[in-house]
Amino acid sequence: MSDPALDFWFDFASTYSYPATLRIRPLAQHAGVSIRFRPFLLGPIFKAQGWETSPFNLYEVKGRNMWRDLQRICADLSIPFQRPEPFPQNSLLGARVALVGLAQSWGEDFCEALYRSQFGERRRIDEPATVAAVLAALKVDAAPVLAAAHSDAIKSQLRRQTEAAQRLGIFGAPSFVTADGELFWGNDRLERALLWAKRGDDEGFCLSL
Amino acid sequence: MSDPALDFWFDFASTYSYPATLRIRPLAQHAGVSIRFRPFLLGPIFKAQGWETSPFNLYEVKGRNMWRDLQRICADLSIPFQRPEPFPQNSLLGARVALVGLAQSWGEDFCEALYRSQFGERRRIDEPATVAAVLAALKVDAAPVLAAAHSDAIKSQLRRQTEAAQRLGIFGAPSFVTADGELFWGNDRLERALLWAKRGDDEGFCLSL
Repeated sequence: MSDPALDFWFDFASTYSYPATLRIRPLAQHAGVSIRFRPFLLGPIFKAQGWETSPFNLYEVKGRNMWRDLQRICADLSIPFQRPEPFPQNSLLGARVALVGLAQSWGEDFCEALYRSQFGERRRIDEPATVAAVLAALKVDAAPVLAAAHSDAIKSQLRRQTEAAQRLGIFGAPSFVTADGELFWGNDRLERALLWAKRGDDEGFCLSL
Repeated sequence: MSDPALDFWFDFASTYSYPATLRIRPLAQHAGVSIRFRPFLLGPIFKAQGWETSPFNLYEVKGRNMWRDLQRICADLSIPFQRPEPFPQNSLLGARVALVGLAQSWGEDFCEALYRSQFGERRRIDEPATVAAVLAALKVDAAPVLAAAHSDAIKSQLRRQTEAAQRLGIFGAPSFVTADGELFWGNDRLERALLWAKRGDDEGFCLSL
């Protein structure tokens, strides 16, 4: 078997991607699995299912539960949580900047920090000022990065990545895909996905009931 | 605080209620939490959201992932799994018989066994013969039970219970509701719900990241 690896698919507008992004690096390191961060856009995928906004907005009781659940999860993890306003936010700029950073050294730190700014500090990630502030905190010069984020190369990379997500059967975020194509959906499946990446389809956890 | 207690809301047509039903009794006993089994019907709740069938049928990619995920979960738990056909099945008879049994001594065993017959042995739970066979295996005389299941008292109890679920904000199954009204949705939230039932809203798990 090759080195254990897991692709991590996320959209900056996705709520459960916030705890997943903060959890994945330490958990993966502990498990000995290498992670590839793969930002994509849920919007086109939701539209293909007939949804014009987040299903959490379309189905109000489900949305109410999600916010409460996310609040509990963040409390359990001791990470800050404030409900973003508006929701969902346009994640296009964030995803493009993340692609720039992931080809350099600061991409994963940027992803963590942008999630924190939206869900921990209630900043608007669709505003370039927020993205610039996050870059500044990482000591990255914002101007060339924002210019690169608007280049045709990055725009088309993000489009291709979103199409790749769709081909993999991804319908929500966060999602985790192993080298053998096994798809796990949801922050609560992260640990299981890491184990699969590490061991493949063996006898299962063999948990007792 | 009163004795820790948790209400367990489920529909026999619900896929993730299968592992939840098999897990809840040993986990609750270990946690020292008393459980009340509360069968209800998801159908009217889905209809109120505009769904005429399971969302897993309406959203095909989501459904495909759910079946795979459930298969993995059952393998991890070493419990049998076969995809039921058709899906979803009418759970009305099962829910009514469960109400009869829960007022006697065999209700929880019946719930476990009926889930096993559907998701482990591919039996049709909308057929009285399946329900009768499950009762026979539990050494319960089927005829008077089926008669009671069709009584006005049981029919109206199930209607009231489904209305109560709706009032609690339940929109899917399995769901767990604590004495202080905290709602947890999904098999993967069972452990957290038990902890809440036991300790209330304290500082959270304080998990490390």
